[in-house]
Amino acid sequence: MKKIAVDAMGGDYAPQSIVEGVNQAIQAFSDIEIILYGDEAKIKKYLIEHERVSIVHTDEKINSDDEPTRAIRRKKNASMVLAARAVKQKEADALLSAGNTGALLAAGFFIVGRMKSIDRPALLSTLPTVDGKGFDMMDLGANAENTPQHLHQYAVMGSFYAEQVRGIKRPRVGLLNNGTESSKGDPLRKETYELLASDEAIHFIGNVEARDLMTGVADVVVTDGFTGNAVLKTMEGTAMGIMGQLKSSILAGGWRAKLGAMLLKGSLRELKQSLDYSDVGGAVLFGVAAPVVKTHGSSDAKAVYSTLRQIRTMLETTVVEKAVAEFSGESDDR
Amino acid sequence: MKKIAVDAMGGDYAPQSIVEGVNQAIQAFSDIEIILYGDEAKIKKYLIEHERVSIVHTDEKINSDDEPTRAIRRKKNASMVLAARAVKQKEADALLSAGNTGALLAAGFFIVGRMKSIDRPALLSTLPTVDGKGFDMMDLGANAENTPQHLHQYAVMGSFYAEQVRGIKRPRVGLLNNGTESSKGDPLRKETYELLASDEAIHFIGNVEARDLMTGVADVVVTDGFTGNAVLKTMEGTAMGIMGQLKSSILAGGWRAKLGAMLLKGSLRELKQSLDYSDVGGAVLFGVAAPVVKTHGSSDAKAVYSTLRQIRTMLETTVVEKAVAEFSGESDDR
Repeated sequence: MKKIAVDAMGGDYAPQSIVEGVNQAIQAFSDIEIILYGDEAKIKKYLIEHERVSIVHTDEKINSDDEPTRAIRRKKNASMVLAARAVKQKEADALLSAGNTGALLAAGFFIVGRMKSIDRPALLSTLPTVDGKGFDMMDLGANAENTPQHLHQYAVMGSFYAEQVRGIKRPRVGLLNNGTESSKGDPLRKETYELLASDEAIHFIGNVEARDLMTGVADVVVTDGFTGNAVLKTMEGTAMGIMGQLKSSILAGGWRAKLGAMLLKGSLRELKQSLDYSDVGGAVLFGVAAPVVKTHGSSDAKAVYSTLRQIRTMLETTVVEKAVAEFSGESDDR
Repeated sequence: MKKIAVDAMGGDYAPQSIVEGVNQAIQAFSDIEIILYGDEAKIKKYLIEHERVSIVHTDEKINSDDEPTRAIRRKKNASMVLAARAVKQKEADALLSAGNTGALLAAGFFIVGRMKSIDRPALLSTLPTVDGKGFDMMDLGANAENTPQHLHQYAVMGSFYAEQVRGIKRPRVGLLNNGTESSKGDPLRKETYELLASDEAIHFIGNVEARDLMTGVADVVVTDGFTGNAVLKTMEGTAMGIMGQLKSSILAGGWRAKLGAMLLKGSLRELKQSLDYSDVGGAVLFGVAAPVVKTHGSSDAKAVYSTLRQIRTMLETTVVEKAVAEFSGESDDR
């Protein structure tokens, strides 16, 4: 039986969507236990009582505009902090929150703790591709700066994740660069290229360009946190912009357009779903000693459910333990 | 009368689309002359003879897979090289090519020559926003690495361009960063932030995030060439991915979806046009001594025409001369 600590108070629709997602997951998976951290009275309003769900009450919570590191240090009884401490003290095996991303990163680093020989944990998400298979990208913004050694570790961790959690054999690893030729990029890319090319434990396919990410050019894409953050946010912004433009164009297009949109409803819904990250779970803070997963602040119950399913798979496959073992046996220069 | 040197042999549909775009522009604008560089017989197949269009014949051309700097040095009679040399020797005022981007950058740097005190010319394009106004972003990939001083120059050059060419008064300048707070980012962003905030000649509005670019959060967005390249290619890839997915979803959706798409034709065409960069012209290599503009390799006649219109505006407003004057009077530390 695996125990998942859930911050019930983080996110735009907390605790309702969090608790409703927990209700769904506890029904679907008979091998997990969930501990909810937060305001007991508010949680109980939505919770379907279940023997495998318990509540740890607290009045305190971290807000979305709190300064992350300070909030973690000062709000010692915040729901997120208590949940992280439970993981540290082995009372729980994994942590889920939809709250303040920076605070969750800080809780991961400082409370749960880093894996041995991983200097810089990173954010990994499975992002959508046209064929529906998706790709794993890291770092999506846990760090503002990275070294070639960090990116090499991300390639190894990303491969672990794609293989264990998504069931992809010999995942193809690409280095995000400003061209596909091996000589491309700044010193960070050039040095990383050498490290990846000489590591036989991963299936490195060379440089990949941002233009080709959605066509599934690689299963795992590594980049520094600054670029990863910019690429992720550009994807989100472009998708939102296009869907918004289509909508206003339909609204301005008179009865023909409106009838057309009605008939196209199925296709448009399908399109929206294919762009919906919530189905593939949340962003994993990879490199800390246990699964710590951030689900989107605007997550609904379905997204929370999907993220709990993802965490369950991570626990079942022991992907984090395997990564811990891999990196603990390494020399210092990795 | 302004003279534009046009590389007739660069791009996927050269010389046809290039020459047809020239035919359109020469009709539309009575104050420009065009010199076409390339294979005379092939050019004449498409050219509508005109007293303000001349041809300089050459058999040689730079291919899309040629190594840029070597190609510029060795293929001394390539159409792109001859066109660049004409600009250097003041036989023409500006250069247009749809060919090898790297080679055009090299031709700009090494043949046309840099502006005084600009170390690193950069690529600027007007990219689409939801409201149709667009924003200017640089560097889009001329450089793999940049310093805070480069980014400061880009803010000044981008402001010049937005004001002179697009007619925006006091253009709002944003620094692309991984958060909007002033303390965000790596050392490059932090130092650039200080430089931009203390320069009263530009209207700096602070950090902007990639998610908000398409909503028109700023008129000018500055970033390093590596990030700019990744953001531009992510926009292209995401837009292509979404449109492709919508199309296949319609094709798979039976008669209802097909009828719906027929009725929605106008809206879908409008959407496609709003994402179409070709209407706003090409990418300007800003920081060299004359307008050097790259139009997309897959440009059709309309895109070539739009880019010639853009170059004409640049020449009319003397935006490059004004930038030259601005930077020649500066202290060395800029």
